[in-house]
Amino acid sequence: MHKVAVGILGASGYTGRELCGLVARHPGMELAFAAANGQRGQRARFGASEITFLAPDDVKLDDAQMVFSALPHGASAGWVDAARQAGARVIDLSSDFRPGNSPTAAPYGLTEIMRDTLAGAELVANPGCYPTAVLIGLAPLLARGLVRAGATINVNAASGVTGAGFAPKQELMFAEVAEDFRAYAPGNVHRHLAEMNALVRELGGDADVLFTPYLLPVARGILATITVPLATGLAHPAALWRGFYAGEPFVEVVDSPPSLRDVVHRNVVRLSVHAAANVRQPTLVIVAAIDNLLKGAAGQAVQNANLLLGLDERLGLPA
Amino acid sequence: MHKVAVGILGASGYTGRELCGLVARHPGMELAFAAANGQRGQRARFGASEITFLAPDDVKLDDAQMVFSALPHGASAGWVDAARQAGARVIDLSSDFRPGNSPTAAPYGLTEIMRDTLAGAELVANPGCYPTAVLIGLAPLLARGLVRAGATINVNAASGVTGAGFAPKQELMFAEVAEDFRAYAPGNVHRHLAEMNALVRELGGDADVLFTPYLLPVARGILATITVPLATGLAHPAALWRGFYAGEPFVEVVDSPPSLRDVVHRNVVRLSVHAAANVRQPTLVIVAAIDNLLKGAAGQAVQNANLLLGLDERLGLPA
Amino acid sequence: MHKVAVGILGASGYTGRELCGLVARHPGMELAFAAANGQRGQRARFGASEITFLAPDDVKLDDAQMVFSALPHGASAGWVDAARQAGARVIDLSSDFRPGNSPTAAPYGLTEIMRDTLAGAELVANPGCYPTAVLIGLAPLLARGLVRAGATINVNAASGVTGAGFAPKQELMFAEVAEDFRAYAPGNVHRHLAEMNALVRELGGDADVLFTPYLLPVARGILATITVPLATGLAHPAALWRGFYAGEPFVEVVDSPPSLRDVVHRNVVRLSVHAAANVRQPTLVIVAAIDNLLKGAAGQAVQNANLLLGLDERLGLPA
Amino acid sequence: MHKVAVGILGASGYTGRELCGLVARHPGMELAFAAANGQRGQRARFGASEITFLAPDDVKLDDAQMVFSALPHGASAGWVDAARQAGARVIDLSSDFRPGNSPTAAPYGLTEIMRDTLAGAELVANPGCYPTAVLIGLAPLLARGLVRAGATINVNAASGVTGAGFAPKQELMFAEVAEDFRAYAPGNVHRHLAEMNALVRELGGDADVLFTPYLLPVARGILATITVPLATGLAHPAALWRGFYAGEPFVEVVDSPPSLRDVVHRNVVRLSVHAAANVRQPTLVIVAAIDNLLKGAAGQAVQNANLLLGLDERLGLPA
Repeated sequence: MHKVAVGILGASGYTGRELCGLVARHPGMELAFAAANGQRGQRARFGASEITFLAPDDVKLDDAQMVFSALPHGASAGWVDAARQAGARVIDLSSDFRPGNSPTAAPYGLTEIMRDTLAGAELVANPGCYPTAVLIGLAPLLARGLVRAGATINVNAASGVTGAGFAPKQELMFAEVAEDFRAYAPGNVHRHLAEMNALVRELGGDADVLFTPYLLPVARGILATITVPLATGLAHPAALWRGFYAGEPFVEVVDSPPSLRDVVHRNVVRLSVHAAANVRQPTLVIVAAIDNLLKGAAGQAVQNANLLLGLDERLGLPA
Repeated sequence: MHKVAVGILGASGYTGRELCGLVARHPGMELAFAAANGQRGQRARFGASEITFLAPDDVKLDDAQMVFSALPHGASAGWVDAARQAGARVIDLSSDFRPGNSPTAAPYGLTEIMRDTLAGAELVANPGCYPTAVLIGLAPLLARGLVRAGATINVNAASGVTGAGFAPKQELMFAEVAEDFRAYAPGNVHRHLAEMNALVRELGGDADVLFTPYLLPVARGILATITVPLATGLAHPAALWRGFYAGEPFVEVVDSPPSLRDVVHRNVVRLSVHAAANVRQPTLVIVAAIDNLLKGAAGQAVQNANLLLGLDERLGLPA
Repeated sequence: MHKVAVGILGASGYTGRELCGLVARHPGMELAFAAANGQRGQRARFGASEITFLAPDDVKLDDAQMVFSALPHGASAGWVDAARQAGARVIDLSSDFRPGNSPTAAPYGLTEIMRDTLAGAELVANPGCYPTAVLIGLAPLLARGLVRAGATINVNAASGVTGAGFAPKQELMFAEVAEDFRAYAPGNVHRHLAEMNALVRELGGDADVLFTPYLLPVARGILATITVPLATGLAHPAALWRGFYAGEPFVEVVDSPPSLRDVVHRNVVRLSVHAAANVRQPTLVIVAAIDNLLKGAAGQAVQNANLLLGLDERLGLPA
Repeated sequence: MHKVAVGILGASGYTGRELCGLVARHPGMELAFAAANGQRGQRARFGASEITFLAPDDVKLDDAQMVFSALPHGASAGWVDAARQAGARVIDLSSDFRPGNSPTAAPYGLTEIMRDTLAGAELVANPGCYPTAVLIGLAPLLARGLVRAGATINVNAASGVTGAGFAPKQELMFAEVAEDFRAYAPGNVHRHLAEMNALVRELGGDADVLFTPYLLPVARGILATITVPLATGLAHPAALWRGFYAGEPFVEVVDSPPSLRDVVHRNVVRLSVHAAANVRQPTLVIVAAIDNLLKGAAGQAVQNANLLLGLDERLGLPA
């Protein structure tokens, strides 16, 4: 198989390392470079490959036909522009080109929902981890116009600590996180909120997301619970999701609530849908689980790259 | 100090053991008996005291002036009746006499809210762990009539595994719980729901609780997030809670969301209140944390016993 | 590729489930049956395959050309005999036919060391998890006669809780294991001791193993530290191991001590060797890590099955 | 009760914070100052007290009659000298004045063993965490001359991550430590070795310690296993320890191996002693557990301070 030359920017964080591993094992990709400012010169092993992280300035961007940027928000846009000028297609995993974050948002890489708009794209804004779980959960309702107009969509979502980044921080040390559980960004001010609201509206909803995130004492995974007031009751709600995602290799609709163990190290969204008993208004409770580093970041990025390259979307991805 | 003779039924589970420890260290109590059907004859150490668990049938109920029942739901009512006939005051930690669970509910031991109705009681229904966190969070709003009429109060609350009991179960083994996080009882059907709804109404609310519980990979603690649509906006919401709970030794109103580490091994509710930005309707997000075995069970039971006995409510309790 | 029909006895424990998963993904094997007395009729998914556990009595042993028995010690021997009479080759993962445990020990499946004696075997006694880590660590010294005659080989080895089995037990519940660490079987009486001592002698050593095992608050993995008094000092000890295991796909000799994260979900032994400073007698410290369910059980069993079947030893195994 | 004015240097690390908490709750001590260079100006709550960390240079050393230094090794000695010149008694928790580390070692604060030499001391070198567990375990054997001459004493000891300090480090982040277990300082080169060997000799032993430490995925606690070749066999070994430590409030001799849960948040050493079966030479296996921050650091420091001040040794300490 011809192998596409791939470059990775921001390669030494948790997402960057996950990208390195996926590319190293991908039958249709080969690594052109892996840049990581803080760890330049260090080596890391991914499967059978050993990689030396380069300084970003030492990288030749035109060595790569496809570039993944896992650089921090704010720092990514400049490198993305440079990579595009060097002729590469780019999947940007930062928020710099995402809807709700940029006036000139790029095509949004929520693959299952946006497949048609992504096919010929030169630049894709890869979704945030929380928005991926939430929007895959909501999309069937939004497509049918079933979210009650003017409603508040209540999202409570808990993430493992790899979602908080690779850099050492006091509050992420083992002795601080173990046996603890915390909410953060209370009062609906998390930086992923605008992205979720922008997509809810783009997909036809007239509703506000109220988002509370939590830090879990686990390494990987996100579990999101989405409570949605409905315009009208639904007799067999799960059937809507099963139909909407029929044939999708990376979405699993199940009867019992998914748990993190069902999804870690897999590029899937696994979700269940439950009509709420004992409330006056028809309301659904959707529980969606993903691996924040795979379907929530590096896995979906490779899925989008496969799509752009005309490859089988599943190639190189653990389902 | 004169010591009150205390008997404990259901002494060998997590809650029962916590009760044994609190009573063993309580300056105004001494242990008359600790009954535990499954572990009869076994010994356990609590501080300086060693206790031998008796079979319930070998216990003389009239040895105790105060009885705590930590028996399972359904099994408790009969023993509670027997203890009352033997002349003891009873704190029942099961749901058998709680509002929403029994047509003849006993006085409800949510101490800070119900203090007036508890003073002369012979039998107190000690609140469930989840309801304690939720109702202490909601009470100031309910007292002021600030919950929007007809609203859904969205409660997402995660508990450590000691909340699921002491008996060995496959799904509670270390290798199943570690690195996992799960919702359970989805669709608003948890057995604590009726208790919460009954109290919301008793405290003047016209609203429905929509409750989703979770199992955390930690031993102890509950973190509950309560999203409440308001009748009208509140300029400085935390001030309402600070005023309502002024002088309460076991309620802490804080600015940043509490975490489990702040409350484990303490008989407190610690909570923060946040106005939700970016939504159309005025909405509050309340985050409340407790130790499920202390303020959520054994600690509040001892607090209630202190109240019934005319002792300082704080006696023998870690704050 | 022709697929060998494989049967699994004792399929529902942690080792049995790992075997089911390996066989389901093995390019040269297909599952004939998976028997599990306690979970008969239950279904489980392994990759793309869904398996229904059968009662052992409902299994036709002659459906399988190769049988893995993950039955408990004592219960396995009878089923192994039946499978052999039905014409199957058998890998027995219990201790029933292991050296030191049985007067008629079967060929011992420590693949890298015993390859020559395994080639034509009809029955293989798959090594215990602790002995695998310890003996792979010791074999090069034993082969060269470098263990001091009459010495005590001190082994301290810690295992994740999946090593203690799948059945629910009080002391393996999350709330009992988390934040704890315990030694067990103190005083050199663990049931794997005879197996280690038998092999030490079979490989030419005149020394006694003194073994202390520990239970770790992790799901998977064993880390063993082996302290060995030497007959004579060794200038560059690691070179001996690198030479001895050159070309072995499943043994990694590294400079820094391995950790569990290096080996979980992989069928490898990873080890380091360190000359002890500051002691009078020449002494080596060997640190060896394995995944107890893979190289310590199911993975090595498949490695042995590949060998017996004349397949590439690496087939179907994660390295 | 008259309260002794206490100053704490290095107050913001894990040991320093534990000291702050112990002093805040100690009935015979009051806090004069808590200095912490990195967190100057920050506030922290310990029980009912709120403390503001001062810059060390802003502290008036003569405000304190007793100074605890929890400064890093190397940085402590100068401050200790200054505190002594200011007239304070000093407990130094660094290694700067410990035997094996300094030519002018101070009296060694292994309280139970060294009580006689500590009574009038102006400066005490508080033992390291690992040496405390190991030496309390070995002392009865050394006192009786029962360690085999020329032997190697094999020590394997695992510590929770608070033993590795408070400063953020990549390898101590939750996602790196959880589900892992690692040996470090292999080959008998840990900085606590000289301290252990110096004391073994001071207590009459002619033997070498061979020490392998490990990092556990827990917050607190040390479990040490000490394997000791004996000069002669011992019929009832535990009786020696029970006699030697009779009446000691902070040493517990038990039959089954202690575990971390038995000792965390308590200022005790809990240990068991087991004759090794199945070896040619008479050998003992001693298992000792401590809380690394209490009996292994801050707790033993307060115990020593109580002794120096003529107070009940148990005052202010959780047993």
